[in-house]
Amino acid sequence: MPAQPSPPARHQRWETVAIVGVGLIGGSIGIDLLRRGLAKNVVGIGRRPESLRIAQAVGACTSATLDVPQGLDQAQLIVVCTPVGRLVHDVRAAASFCRPDTLITDVGSTKAHIVAELDRELPREAHYVGSHPLAGGERGGPAAATAGLFEGRTVVVTPGDATREEDLQAITSFWQSLGATVTCMTPDEHDRLLAAASHLPHVAAAALAAATPHDCLPLVATGWTDTTRVAAGDPELWKDILLANRSNVLDALGHYEEILNRLRQALARDDAAGVVDILREAKLKRDAVGS
Amino acid sequence: MPAQPSPPARHQRWETVAIVGVGLIGGSIGIDLLRRGLAKNVVGIGRRPESLRIAQAVGACTSATLDVPQGLDQAQLIVVCTPVGRLVHDVRAAASFCRPDTLITDVGSTKAHIVAELDRELPREAHYVGSHPLAGGERGGPAAATAGLFEGRTVVVTPGDATREEDLQAITSFWQSLGATVTCMTPDEHDRLLAAASHLPHVAAAALAAATPHDCLPLVATGWTDTTRVAAGDPELWKDILLANRSNVLDALGHYEEILNRLRQALARDDAAGVVDILREAKLKRDAVGS
Repeated sequence: MPAQPSPPARHQRWETVAIVGVGLIGGSIGIDLLRRGLAKNVVGIGRRPESLRIAQAVGACTSATLDVPQGLDQAQLIVVCTPVGRLVHDVRAAASFCRPDTLITDVGSTKAHIVAELDRELPREAHYVGSHPLAGGERGGPAAATAGLFEGRTVVVTPGDATREEDLQAITSFWQSLGATVTCMTPDEHDRLLAAASHLPHVAAAALAAATPHDCLPLVATGWTDTTRVAAGDPELWKDILLANRSNVLDALGHYEEILNRLRQALARDDAAGVVDILREAKLKRDAVGS
Repeated sequence: MPAQPSPPARHQRWETVAIVGVGLIGGSIGIDLLRRGLAKNVVGIGRRPESLRIAQAVGACTSATLDVPQGLDQAQLIVVCTPVGRLVHDVRAAASFCRPDTLITDVGSTKAHIVAELDRELPREAHYVGSHPLAGGERGGPAAATAGLFEGRTVVVTPGDATREEDLQAITSFWQSLGATVTCMTPDEHDRLLAAASHLPHVAAAALAAATPHDCLPLVATGWTDTTRVAAGDPELWKDILLANRSNVLDALGHYEEILNRLRQALARDDAAGVVDILREAKLKRDAVGS
């Protein structure tokens, strides 16, 4: 990984921040910006009035609108929190409607495809830096938004070829102001690492849930519920993530299938040492991470 | 599944219960028996003085001993909580040292192999019924023992050909007295269902942890930590469980590999509908179970 940006002396206070897509991530950003006094106004921008009402009710924004140009009009910072499949479109819209000098970031779970497209398509004067907060959960929507979601979590920022150093510093400082630890890497490195750290776990969990016969469901306990928890996530959202990063996901999945195959062969030949070898390697890595 | 035993009017109070192997499960049984006034004396029997000291300190037993015959001498109920690889030996020892009419059960995670061997080997007058409480966690040992571990959990009881109806009722009542819901099935049916509900999740989680490259570990978040949680379990214990039930585990693993293969092929041909199909089926089953 490249050297990490150093934290600035103190964090910027924003007059107005616009959040496009006020669900779990966008809503939690809004709550913290307001509770911590980091923003005076937070404008929630969405496509469903009901979601915007909930976002306001949980304290995620001070005003809300369905009108994108109007919502972006006063912002010095725009955080685009829409699903991966719509991010390029929504960042492009943000860049075309915002004032000059407005900072723009997104929170997409894949980065290479998005940053490459935006590097090509955004006007040279746009101030966009990609982000990915490693926080969330299988339940989405503004009702799931919560204070302190980013406290102690990692946020990856992924500058592209066109990124200015001062924009990178400003976005880094923004996430640090929410309590996050910021790590900087290229979009390609992000996508390769996240394929194994996040996208493959989703594939493994979903396949496990799908593979469970109905007559076993009454007998599942914490082992199954933990291992399959992320499979409750939104299938459409995750389909977009897996397809956006499919080359890396396929590599990670191939490696996973190799290990499963080794474990299957050890079981098939009643090879206790072969089974224990894999379980020990797994435990070493799992214990290294902690709860 | 066969008809479930009906709950008796009230639960037996035991003068003396012996627990062979006072770790997470055995210790939690002891704590509840004493706290709920269900047993006057609980004798902890183990192989390591240090574990027995901890078991006494956490309130899991009123006395403790390394001497198996002496520990079993006064018991009306013996619960064998040693690892799957030692259960047959330990139940046989319990049956040979206990008084006539003493009830014996175990808590092993596999049942067909154990019940079949014991059906063959135990004297006809022995009162053994196999059990499997669907409770536990990746951390073992008496220090992890906790009150109320079985409250609201399912315990499977697995009578064999030699099991007497009154023994089945007594063991059922014992688990109900700890707050559990008891389900009765054959040892073969238990092992087939648990392969998919518990043993395959362990295989999937361990292979996923083992497949994670070291440079990804700093970037894992709740998706990875949930999906791999059980991989922190004891490799020796789990090796014994997987091998004891390897025919069913291999069947379940084969089905899992088929679903992974379908998902891989859908990703490889950029087939959004094919990916969503599997993610939807997974979510349906995961949502049916709840948190």
